[in-house]
Amino acid sequence: MYMANQQEELKQQALDMHRAHKGKLETVSKIKLKDKKALSLAYTPGVGAVSSAIAKNKEDAYKYTIKANTVAIVSDGTAVLGLGDIGPEAAMPVMEGKAILLKEFADVDAFPICLDTKDPDEIIQVVKAIAPTFGGINLEDISSPRCFHIEDELKKQLDIPVFHDDQHGTAIVVLAGLINALKLTDKNFSKIKIIVNGAGAAGIAVTKLLLAYGTEDITLCDSRGAIYQGRKEGMNSVKESIAKKTNKEKNSGSLADVIKGADVFIGISVANVLTTKAAATMAEKSIIFAMANPVPEIMPDQAKKAGAYIVATGRSDFPNQINNVLAFPGIFRGLLDSRAKVVDNKIKIAAAEAIANSITPTKEEIVPAALNKNVAKIVANAVKKCVQGR
Amino acid sequence: MYMANQQEELKQQALDMHRAHKGKLETVSKIKLKDKKALSLAYTPGVGAVSSAIAKNKEDAYKYTIKANTVAIVSDGTAVLGLGDIGPEAAMPVMEGKAILLKEFADVDAFPICLDTKDPDEIIQVVKAIAPTFGGINLEDISSPRCFHIEDELKKQLDIPVFHDDQHGTAIVVLAGLINALKLTDKNFSKIKIIVNGAGAAGIAVTKLLLAYGTEDITLCDSRGAIYQGRKEGMNSVKESIAKKTNKEKNSGSLADVIKGADVFIGISVANVLTTKAAATMAEKSIIFAMANPVPEIMPDQAKKAGAYIVATGRSDFPNQINNVLAFPGIFRGLLDSRAKVVDNKIKIAAAEAIANSITPTKEEIVPAALNKNVAKIVANAVKKCVQGR
Repeated sequence: MYMANQQEELKQQALDMHRAHKGKLETVSKIKLKDKKALSLAYTPGVGAVSSAIAKNKEDAYKYTIKANTVAIVSDGTAVLGLGDIGPEAAMPVMEGKAILLKEFADVDAFPICLDTKDPDEIIQVVKAIAPTFGGINLEDISSPRCFHIEDELKKQLDIPVFHDDQHGTAIVVLAGLINALKLTDKNFSKIKIIVNGAGAAGIAVTKLLLAYGTEDITLCDSRGAIYQGRKEGMNSVKESIAKKTNKEKNSGSLADVIKGADVFIGISVANVLTTKAAATMAEKSIIFAMANPVPEIMPDQAKKAGAYIVATGRSDFPNQINNVLAFPGIFRGLLDSRAKVVDNKIKIAAAEAIANSITPTKEEIVPAALNKNVAKIVANAVKKCVQGR
Repeated sequence: MYMANQQEELKQQALDMHRAHKGKLETVSKIKLKDKKALSLAYTPGVGAVSSAIAKNKEDAYKYTIKANTVAIVSDGTAVLGLGDIGPEAAMPVMEGKAILLKEFADVDAFPICLDTKDPDEIIQVVKAIAPTFGGINLEDISSPRCFHIEDELKKQLDIPVFHDDQHGTAIVVLAGLINALKLTDKNFSKIKIIVNGAGAAGIAVTKLLLAYGTEDITLCDSRGAIYQGRKEGMNSVKESIAKKTNKEKNSGSLADVIKGADVFIGISVANVLTTKAAATMAEKSIIFAMANPVPEIMPDQAKKAGAYIVATGRSDFPNQINNVLAFPGIFRGLLDSRAKVVDNKIKIAAAEAIANSITPTKEEIVPAALNKNVAKIVANAVKKCVQGR
């Protein structure tokens, strides 16, 4: 009852705050238009010389316009938070939130672009069309598996970096947390058994990044249980493809069946799907990332009771918050500063290692606090170094 | 030589200023993310309540997001200043300039969207797709006659106001200037003969607005001379259509032929096309708006020599600068505040009259100075009153 009241109060405060400010973002001039001279430089006739220079050499847009520091936060509103397909208008508060985080944590100018279309090819077309304004594209809250096609095509067709944060931001912070958790358990990355529960955008991306980082034994589960090569029901092209690289023994069965003996559980799914009983069948010094929001796959006290050595969630009111804000601001700062054209696994791993190495981990702090603004700088430098080292 | 040096110096200063600031616009958070609480209200989990509210009622986007105060400045870069088709990247400095003017003069948040497509139907599709983010669309520097189709379709298909500033901003300020010029010459609007030179976006729009305001005798010229019903060469659908309502005597011939006896010359064309000799054939107390940039259709001293009573240009270094900045910031402020869905002639005329009536005109000041920030407020109020009076 107390918690329910607190939640209601938080909701009301959030509504009040958004109404009072009419949203969270504003556009501001970097130049004061105090006199005719300033006006003639910032606008006509002076601006003509700047436009002419860029017309001669398109690259100069990075020198003279906001492009070099500006990111579009693009969503069609089909997979917003835990709310699902709520449409572009309702996605705006989240995208504005993302924009102010990019500014506050990494001095990146970002602008929300919420799209009145759900057609993947039209989304690709629209993002391509608006790309000249931007130095990078952050895709956000676009439902799976549509998001994969959209991201792949844009990566191919654009010469600016495209980053789907729900996938890669999550994957990077999970990898960072796991690197530190393993340090504390003295387990070796190549020898652990990992279960990822949830085969949406984040679950797929986490699995792919862990594979790229060298894990050998990883099984992805969805609501029907383990995904394996040859499974007939509830598959799609992305699941088919990942089944070839995971679950080598082609185990079938429910989450409770396949989690036996696992060292790591990573949940990016829904509330309460990991029972205490199932968690208790995991290996010694098990690691549980239960990131469903707001109610995790298993509550931290229950996970501990079941024998988990380290527990992380997506929530700020428990230790070890796995929060994308540790990754995406620094990632974009680094991408923009290094003029990267694409975000590959090397960059993602460099970012994850930078987050992990930014602290001396403890069981209660395997990742830095979400509000630690130093992390973005550290991540940005790692990304920059990775891109420039090529 | 002195002027050429000055121009070179201005160009260099404009380049330096744009490079030093890396463009002119930034996005800024209206909320300080100083602690966990602020983060939980502006972003997860608090933002969920805001998104849910909008999902239930789309209209609430105007209450809780930036939509209510935000305008997209959309260009495909095909008709930028006097530079022509220079592409979307090169158009950015102009669109950023427009954005900072909207903010500085009318507290409107505006964001440039420069498009990597010239296909009118694709432009329409893209603007429709990004519309959920915005409370209004300012079309800018899109070449004629493509701009007419794009604007017409968007007006039909969107429920937010769409305003092509090159057309309507120019038409409004020209009408404002003409209202005041006629006061000083004691001529009556319905009895004067007007020549508009230049049948691009602005020339067409000026002609249409003057017709809507009640002028009876108006002839539009292009580089081939007078446009008349039945003319064979150099026509397009827009010229055909306007030929039916103008040049009632179907006069043919060059600008110099048809300007004889005219009370008003409005040039939105190219440098030096109005000779002193032709200007001298105009009626008593003639009014000349020579708005080609940077070199007018006739220089003010030459126009005066030819007998002009009042002369206006587009330049800030002569008296009577016809500058769109007198109109568009206040227009958008008024449109947003009144939640107008469309900009029609009544609104444009209300804005023009408000600009005209904001000063006591003299021959050297038929419109307010471009930097007079009170004008935007006056225009905004007039627009609001016009919309709300329905």
